[in-house]
Amino acid sequence: MHIFSYEILFNFIQAVFIKIGFSEKEALLATEALLKADLRGIDSHGIARLSGYVRLWEAKRLNPQPQMKIIYETPTTATLDGDSGVGLVVAQKAMEIAMQKAETYGTGWVAVQNSNHFGIAGYHAMLALQKNMIGIALTNASPLVAPTFSVDRLLGTNPIAVAIPAQTEPPFVADFATTTAANGKLEILERKGENAPWGWLQDAEGNITTDTQARKKGGALLPLGSDYEHGSHKGYCLGALVDIFSGVFSGANYASWVPPFVSYLSLPTNPVGKGIGHFLGAIRIDAFRPKEEFLSHMDNWIRAFRNAKAVKDKKVLIPGDIERETEKERLQSGIPLMPSVVADLNNLAEKFQIDPLAN
Amino acid sequence: MHIFSYEILFNFIQAVFIKIGFSEKEALLATEALLKADLRGIDSHGIARLSGYVRLWEAKRLNPQPQMKIIYETPTTATLDGDSGVGLVVAQKAMEIAMQKAETYGTGWVAVQNSNHFGIAGYHAMLALQKNMIGIALTNASPLVAPTFSVDRLLGTNPIAVAIPAQTEPPFVADFATTTAANGKLEILERKGENAPWGWLQDAEGNITTDTQARKKGGALLPLGSDYEHGSHKGYCLGALVDIFSGVFSGANYASWVPPFVSYLSLPTNPVGKGIGHFLGAIRIDAFRPKEEFLSHMDNWIRAFRNAKAVKDKKVLIPGDIERETEKERLQSGIPLMPSVVADLNNLAEKFQIDPLAN
Repeated sequence: MHIFSYEILFNFIQAVFIKIGFSEKEALLATEALLKADLRGIDSHGIARLSGYVRLWEAKRLNPQPQMKIIYETPTTATLDGDSGVGLVVAQKAMEIAMQKAETYGTGWVAVQNSNHFGIAGYHAMLALQKNMIGIALTNASPLVAPTFSVDRLLGTNPIAVAIPAQTEPPFVADFATTTAANGKLEILERKGENAPWGWLQDAEGNITTDTQARKKGGALLPLGSDYEHGSHKGYCLGALVDIFSGVFSGANYASWVPPFVSYLSLPTNPVGKGIGHFLGAIRIDAFRPKEEFLSHMDNWIRAFRNAKAVKDKKVLIPGDIERETEKERLQSGIPLMPSVVADLNNLAEKFQIDPLAN
Repeated sequence: MHIFSYEILFNFIQAVFIKIGFSEKEALLATEALLKADLRGIDSHGIARLSGYVRLWEAKRLNPQPQMKIIYETPTTATLDGDSGVGLVVAQKAMEIAMQKAETYGTGWVAVQNSNHFGIAGYHAMLALQKNMIGIALTNASPLVAPTFSVDRLLGTNPIAVAIPAQTEPPFVADFATTTAANGKLEILERKGENAPWGWLQDAEGNITTDTQARKKGGALLPLGSDYEHGSHKGYCLGALVDIFSGVFSGANYASWVPPFVSYLSLPTNPVGKGIGHFLGAIRIDAFRPKEEFLSHMDNWIRAFRNAKAVKDKKVLIPGDIERETEKERLQSGIPLMPSVVADLNNLAEKFQIDPLAN
């Protein structure tokens, strides 16, 4: 592992986005969103994907200078056309609109079409915290997941993120894929040549398998719950809701029509919408009760859980605790990158004639 | 099993609610909500609970003539004080307010305090379908569930229900507890003296157990995902979100302060709010794109999933399929009740001097 400071990686990413035609401002916004994944320890969704975004641009599937516009609107809702811009930026624009509406009406909700991968959902939900609001972010994604009893892959890992501010306690930040396991964890096991635990994957016939290669042999990731006896139909419901809110609400693609992130897979024929879809929401914290009351009860809620009696040698965590600790630590000590990621980034450096990362 | 027609059970329940002081209209509303559970095959949440509601009334924890009122409001949000009325009715009032707001502003959101058990969440979400809207219903509930790594029980089975209309296809109706297994399924196993599958329960030390008695010996239900390796922290996030939206938003109780449904358990001391809490939402189907477009894409979404290639001897279901089939069948052929439930109801008949159910 090589360790790099936040600033060095920030400048690197920003330079690449500018090289592919982003404005200064949008390169900044995209870099903040992308690198937040690395800061928070979700390494699969951060700088390791930078070359993937570049390849989308090369395949003319990512517009570096999108003209985003609201194509449909009610007082509290809007649909945003992302004009094939990078999801990292498009979703921030959508959250901005949601927060403006929430400011006036208590809540604001924006569905997004014609976008692509937006990084970690938690980043976009957390934007609302800056305005002392509750933020919600959903997105659909490349179909990798089989609904309960299906062998076909019809859902993405379709994450749900919700960020809720508190008073003196740090905020509650839930951010999770609606599958049993994150795809990133499977990639790590695959690289090590290890098997996956029971319940993460199924094979091409729909039998649960521990073979991490199953994804490449017609298998699929399993919805949260693993199998029917353990509630996979509930995980399927969650993934389906994210797909409908992100794709059907907005006029984006949904189900197996969602375009893959990787540019070497061809786009589905007969698309049912434009690009991939997101759904962003903002709720004013004084939407339901006075602000101070809400915040002090959130503190109380958080303490009740944090102070619960724990299983031996464990502690009860609040959603967001681990990521916040990782962020604090990596801001100080730097962000570790695998040699393969550094090599991949230095290929980009050569291509775009920017300073390589030292290794 | 004895089989009774919908009408006979309807009249029975309505008579009981009137005997304990409900108005004609509210007895009707409560009966419709309660019996919908039996119709849809969720027997644990229907008429089997009628005597439980009566005991709550006897314990002066259920007000038969509540003066519900909006105690806080923005254009798209409101907080409703249920005045200790039955959740079956209070939640319907809340959904009515949410739909009125959605009519004007695109979306409407109502948090409820000072309520109690509201039956099945799906019933309240489905009210929105009658106005061609999308409905959302959440509620917190008696603490039976341990968050990941906790031995304390801090969450209820905290269900999530979302109902989404389609054009020619039946609606999508998700309605599920945020636990691996429903408490009702555990009660059935316990009655039969059978063990529970791995992953449904933990014992008093937080070890996974198959002993259905564990709940009475300091154990707990597990969040959806069962253990950390299979994503129980995600199920914990979901249960936590339902608790915060229902309890912290509204000024109801939350965490271990949520009052138990059963009247023989005493109320928690030092409550942090009033009664239990719900959260209801309504979204106009033309909030994000024209109505016809939305509905035809919902049809397309539903067909894509229904027609997916299935695992051998199975089919891919749409959320709500099983319950809708059960409802159709039970409206025609009647609703089966266990002898113990019939006996319990006939005790009520005797107490209130109404016609008993034949058995």
